[in-house]
Amino acid sequence: MDKESILHLLQRAREVRENAYAPYSKFRVGAALLTTDGKIFTGCNVENLAYGSATCAERTGICKAVSEGSRTFSACLITSDLEDWIYPCGNCRQTLAEFGDMTLILTKNEGDETKIMKLSDIHGGCFATMNELLNKE
Amino acid sequence: MDKESILHLLQRAREVRENAYAPYSKFRVGAALLTTDGKIFTGCNVENLAYGSATCAERTGICKAVSEGSRTFSACLITSDLEDWIYPCGNCRQTLAEFGDMTLILTKNEGDETKIMKLSDIHGGCFATMNELLNKE
Amino acid sequence: MDKESILHLLQRAREVRENAYAPYSKFRVGAALLTTDGKIFTGCNVENLAYGSATCAERTGICKAVSEGSRTFSACLITSDLEDWIYPCGNCRQTLAEFGDMTLILTKNEGDETKIMKLSDIHGGCFATMNELLNKE
Amino acid sequence: MDKESILHLLQRAREVRENAYAPYSKFRVGAALLTTDGKIFTGCNVENLAYGSATCAERTGICKAVSEGSRTFSACLITSDLEDWIYPCGNCRQTLAEFGDMTLILTKNEGDETKIMKLSDIHGGCFATMNELLNKE
Ligand SMILES: [Zn+2]
Ligand SMILES: [Zn+2]
Ligand SMILES: [Zn+2]
Ligand SMILES: [Zn+2]
Repeated sequence: MDKESILHLLQRAREVRENAYAPYSKFRVGAALLTTDGKIFTGCNVENLAYGSATCAERTGICKAVSEGSRTFSACLITSDLEDWIYPCGNCRQTLAEFGDMTLILTKNEGDETKIMKLSDIHGGCFATMNELLNKE
Repeated sequence: MDKESILHLLQRAREVRENAYAPYSKFRVGAALLTTDGKIFTGCNVENLAYGSATCAERTGICKAVSEGSRTFSACLITSDLEDWIYPCGNCRQTLAEFGDMTLILTKNEGDETKIMKLSDIHGGCFATMNELLNKE
Repeated sequence: MDKESILHLLQRAREVRENAYAPYSKFRVGAALLTTDGKIFTGCNVENLAYGSATCAERTGICKAVSEGSRTFSACLITSDLEDWIYPCGNCRQTLAEFGDMTLILTKNEGDETKIMKLSDIHGGCFATMNELLNKE
Repeated sequence: MDKESILHLLQRAREVRENAYAPYSKFRVGAALLTTDGKIFTGCNVENLAYGSATCAERTGICKAVSEGSRTFSACLITSDLEDWIYPCGNCRQTLAEFGDMTLILTKNEGDETKIMKLSDIHGGCFATMNELLNKE
């Protein structure tokens, strides 16, 4: 990806972060997903008094995309209030992985420095055989 | 709510149901949320090979709305492939309740018959005091 | 249920609450489940840095029971650090409901006052038809 | 870990797998966690009609351990009905990671072949800085 595309995703992720509903953690996250046909879907975290019912920014973005007919992604950029790099949580890695390996673009609260990797770099191992088994039964 | 508004929500929920990603349950659900200022946000279910990482239609809709700046809802209509009424699951009731009590409009796979109730009618009891405690600490 | 049995459940729930892992909310919860054959299983909340990966006390208790071969319950008592009544969250209501309607015994942080109801009183509506549909396909 | 200890964990994981409640996926999983002081806690998957409310074997085991006062683990062995290796899902990786890096022992449905790695090998990246931020606020 070229620098300009990344900066555009970063801008979109920072914009949607403003809508984060995070009264419990006070920790706002924004994500911007790029589909293989060039659409962008954004998401923020949506927390809940029952902590376990919280939804992260990445899952919000994925579900939004799927609900609007997009299922193939080339990249997911994540930004947060952290001074340090923000990584997706395990539940989000699992959710993203359902739709294939993609590029992750991690950022910090400030600046436009990025850390780029494949989802499979931080969510290794193959879950696919379960799929075969499940479909068999 | 007038009949016409309900039928419009139902149409939107049936449209988004087409985008449901439900390869494991084969059970598609669509939801349409009406905000207090008249906007509509829709969602479908997005399943996962790891069943516990599935997101329901109602949560997809709520997270989409919040991520686009809407947090006050007057109604949530739900439709599915069921011949019978579809109810929101407990996790979705919890997620909806975070944003206040609202009208639930349940439907069946076919026809435009509805069952209307308040969220609090099927998600009783008060969770609000936890909020106070959490904010105190 | 007689008073003595309830007080015993309450004691067990308060004991397990001591093991709660709640560094984020600082809000400890304990649950004690009574099976139809008189066994007691207890659980506490287990939080996570990724809020959405938190498990509540009631779910800990249910999963423990199932993993040890028990699936039929007569009651679930819940206690917490709240001065007021603690109710199960929607996700836990859903998890408990999978194993049938049961008695809920709500308590406060101090004292042995209880509020007793059926799970279905606060988790209304019928989810069972989904089951039929799913099993058909 | 010596071969004998691993075989003992495997036996315990296969035993608890018998208690799996998996009417929807028909896919049973068992996990056995070894604490640093030599205790073993086991768990199976506990599914739900609302797929997203399912709990995996590993999380059942972790929550059981924490609720009984154990929070430091040296290994987690996982077994399933799969002919191939079973990996923990992302949500479980996140839950395990909360209690530190540990050894994962993957197995197959039959035989006593194992694949051994660190949790961090398949759940890379650092989430710890969020912790600092959260604790600051
Ligand atoms: Zn996440
Ligand atoms: Zn739901
Ligand atoms: Zn709960
Ligand atoms: Zn899992």
